[in-house]
Amino acid sequence: MAEAEPRRRARGGGGAARRAARTAVSFETARFIERRVPNYEILDEEALELIEANADLVLEEIGVNFVNNPEALKLWKEAGADVEGERVRIPRGLARKLCQTAPSRFTQVARNPERNVEIGGKSLVLAPVYGPPFVRDAEGRRYATMEDFRKFVKLGYMSKWLHHSGGTVCEPTDVPVNKRHFDMLHAHMTLSDKPFMGSVTEPSRAQDSVDMCKILFGEDFVQDNTVMTSLININSPLTFDDVMMGALEVYAKNNQACIISPFIVGGAMAPVSVAGTLTQVLAEVMAGIAYSQLLRPGAPVIFGAFVTSIDMNSGAPTFGTPEASQILYGAGQLARRMGLPFRSGGGLCGSKLPDAQSAYETAHTLNAALLGGVNFMLHACGWLEGGLVSSFEKFVLDADQLGVLHRLAAGIALDENAQALDAIREVGPGGHYLGCAHTQANFKDSFWRSDVLDYRPFETWFEAGAQDSFALASARVEKLLGDYQAPPLDQGISEALDAFIARRKASMPDALT
Amino acid sequence: MAEAEPRRRARGGGGAARRAARTAVSFETARFIERRVPNYEILDEEALELIEANADLVLEEIGVNFVNNPEALKLWKEAGADVEGERVRIPRGLARKLCQTAPSRFTQVARNPERNVEIGGKSLVLAPVYGPPFVRDAEGRRYATMEDFRKFVKLGYMSKWLHHSGGTVCEPTDVPVNKRHFDMLHAHMTLSDKPFMGSVTEPSRAQDSVDMCKILFGEDFVQDNTVMTSLININSPLTFDDVMMGALEVYAKNNQACIISPFIVGGAMAPVSVAGTLTQVLAEVMAGIAYSQLLRPGAPVIFGAFVTSIDMNSGAPTFGTPEASQILYGAGQLARRMGLPFRSGGGLCGSKLPDAQSAYETAHTLNAALLGGVNFMLHACGWLEGGLVSSFEKFVLDADQLGVLHRLAAGIALDENAQALDAIREVGPGGHYLGCAHTQANFKDSFWRSDVLDYRPFETWFEAGAQDSFALASARVEKLLGDYQAPPLDQGISEALDAFIARRKASMPDALT
Repeated sequence: MAEAEPRRRARGGGGAARRAARTAVSFETARFIERRVPNYEILDEEALELIEANADLVLEEIGVNFVNNPEALKLWKEAGADVEGERVRIPRGLARKLCQTAPSRFTQVARNPERNVEIGGKSLVLAPVYGPPFVRDAEGRRYATMEDFRKFVKLGYMSKWLHHSGGTVCEPTDVPVNKRHFDMLHAHMTLSDKPFMGSVTEPSRAQDSVDMCKILFGEDFVQDNTVMTSLININSPLTFDDVMMGALEVYAKNNQACIISPFIVGGAMAPVSVAGTLTQVLAEVMAGIAYSQLLRPGAPVIFGAFVTSIDMNSGAPTFGTPEASQILYGAGQLARRMGLPFRSGGGLCGSKLPDAQSAYETAHTLNAALLGGVNFMLHACGWLEGGLVSSFEKFVLDADQLGVLHRLAAGIALDENAQALDAIREVGPGGHYLGCAHTQANFKDSFWRSDVLDYRPFETWFEAGAQDSFALASARVEKLLGDYQAPPLDQGISEALDAFIARRKASMPDALT
Repeated sequence: MAEAEPRRRARGGGGAARRAARTAVSFETARFIERRVPNYEILDEEALELIEANADLVLEEIGVNFVNNPEALKLWKEAGADVEGERVRIPRGLARKLCQTAPSRFTQVARNPERNVEIGGKSLVLAPVYGPPFVRDAEGRRYATMEDFRKFVKLGYMSKWLHHSGGTVCEPTDVPVNKRHFDMLHAHMTLSDKPFMGSVTEPSRAQDSVDMCKILFGEDFVQDNTVMTSLININSPLTFDDVMMGALEVYAKNNQACIISPFIVGGAMAPVSVAGTLTQVLAEVMAGIAYSQLLRPGAPVIFGAFVTSIDMNSGAPTFGTPEASQILYGAGQLARRMGLPFRSGGGLCGSKLPDAQSAYETAHTLNAALLGGVNFMLHACGWLEGGLVSSFEKFVLDADQLGVLHRLAAGIALDENAQALDAIREVGPGGHYLGCAHTQANFKDSFWRSDVLDYRPFETWFEAGAQDSFALASARVEKLLGDYQAPPLDQGISEALDAFIARRKASMPDALT
């Protein structure tokens, strides 16, 4: 593990008393999931081969556009593609061949090495909501601020089942667009010790992300290790814009991981059919990952598929629908056949509130993601209203549900203790297991238990105020934020980060876009 | 299909105008699900063989009790079991051998033959909540009445994705215990034309159920066809009481179907381990189904598994937990290896309200049931508070979610239209699919759409009152009950049912248990 340990840092400042107070509150984080259960394979071999052949045909005959990016066009031409204007047509088999240098599994290092995550194979890494401009809490819905952002990072740090601090947990709209990324990264780096994502909204902001990581982890360490996994959306259908590709270029060249992900609302950015959408997804991801490998063979990448359906009555994107699950299952199979880590799923929903609708839709997506072999799940908690809103209550409700996935993925134990034949003998027909030796020895770890949902008898619950899940979640948000304590950070690093941000911010005017 | 069509009935009473009014409101019911997707197999061959061997060992070494039932003990002895007092020890392999005469698939006939259901193989039949003494609606929680019962039957009749009218959709506590079954069956027979369940609370009530079916379907028809599927719970661990077995005896001898189902809260009625619970489930079901085949070889039965976990802090049963899903997946595999129809799952939850908790828990169970190969899903909608409450709002919310299962089970189309290559060609890089020919030709049927959840933009939803799922569901309950129209029923049959019930009720005093 020597190559995956960031440089040792001297503990900064605080005396024994402060350290004791810190350690008094323990924020346990479960290790990333390693599935001991099979994946769900919805498509058979013939279907998979058909979709793969169609995706090859799309790349060869229709091609993809690399917009405003002469350097990319040059690389593609050198690699053997047919380049005409901004259109890149890729001969059958070439994209797949180029993808072969991408690793099937990689480690993303956290500043606390215990929180490193492995992405690929049978793993599942859980990261929070990404992108919403609004937040919702017990008071209602409003534009997100940097203070909201920090609260979400704190909640993520304290969430046992969340392995990753994420990226834009909400858009801090009170900070100018061109300076936000500094404050967001600073929050992830200082308020949490879990792995995180870098900025992708400008190539220069990706470079700032890399430079800040060099301060946090050490210059050499960053060159040799992956310390960020960032989100590169493809402009579906079949378009790679220069902003996103610019960020990808920075990250790939610096050996930092990217999710290469079509962003598709079916019927708008892809055909209104599951098979057609899978074809387009595969073509787009192959082109994007092939390009990443042209930039730096071996650069860590993830096969992404953010795909959902549309309500043809209102034009609104819909989530947790059966078509979205089918696409997830199929895309997972396509990713595994390429030997690539897979990103999809999340706690996706279209509901305006963290109510029954939001939970049905979220649970459908979470189940599909677990069984569909997702390796990196963005939006695993806190996503509301089709991604327009980060919800504090839904964050803690979803984060709790992620425990269900951990337990389900652990599989069924079959050792002698789990077989429990002695218990069945001891209790016999008509008996009761509560008091038997096997139950006494095993009950503490036998069944997963929610930390936020209500298991009390009706009368107790009623007398305590008959709270619904929303009210229980609000109380938990308050409690967690009240208990929060920052993980220790070397004072020298902290000061160096502050100085870098101050210098960079001073060098630019405020920008609104 | 001649053997599965009940006798032709003359349309009773009403003239052309009334018939026109009736047909103006159409209550479409989807055909039962025939899965075109694979089952999820969580256990490998070695694990399944281990559990099967352990179950055989439990039956041979520990055995099961048939309580207060000399006739059953006699049958078991004749079949080769070792009978000692009420304990029946079954030599290795005997129970499994006896189970072989049970059909792997059977038809349950409805009085409207279009609503016949097939149970077994790749099918999934959805039936509503069963058993709660309380109801909850927009006004709160109270004891259930016969009027509530009728409302639930009406809602079930009007639910497109529900194939079955169920049985005790709630306990009508305002009717004496010994007379309830008449009113409940009458409601299912007259207010709906979907298939239903018979009474199991006394052997005589099972006989009444058979007798009422003879009036509804015709005497000979009932002898030759299965017109009821009833729920026989095993008194876990390993105990078969005389009341339930008495009902089973009536149904099996009359060729009516029974679900033979352990009712297990893990840690109380079975070991606190998944493998131990699966062992006990298999042993119990094999003993119960073997007994049904001793009564009448070929009697239709279902391998049941109602199994959930327990909260060891409060002792409350918990639902939608990962252990419950694991047991469902494993039990489904064990049932398929015996070639038997499988019952498990449902919209199970422990929540007191139809809130986010109830929906997370419900959706976990629904997904596991679909992928775990369930053939008959009781409690598919309306179940609340660990089965203590039938909820009107949850009934319509869950019944709507059952549409997700239909669509997911239909699999992924791969014909030329579904491949959509022409659409991808037409739109090309950077284009938009909303207006293309393929979208126009397919959008109406492309994506599943909820009939109760909200897809409106935030502003529209907010101005309309910012309703949560509960409020939307309440409105739908009102709307459906307002639109309800009874399916036509031959007047002679209707009068004969009334006369039978009046005569039987007059023959007995009111009883409270």
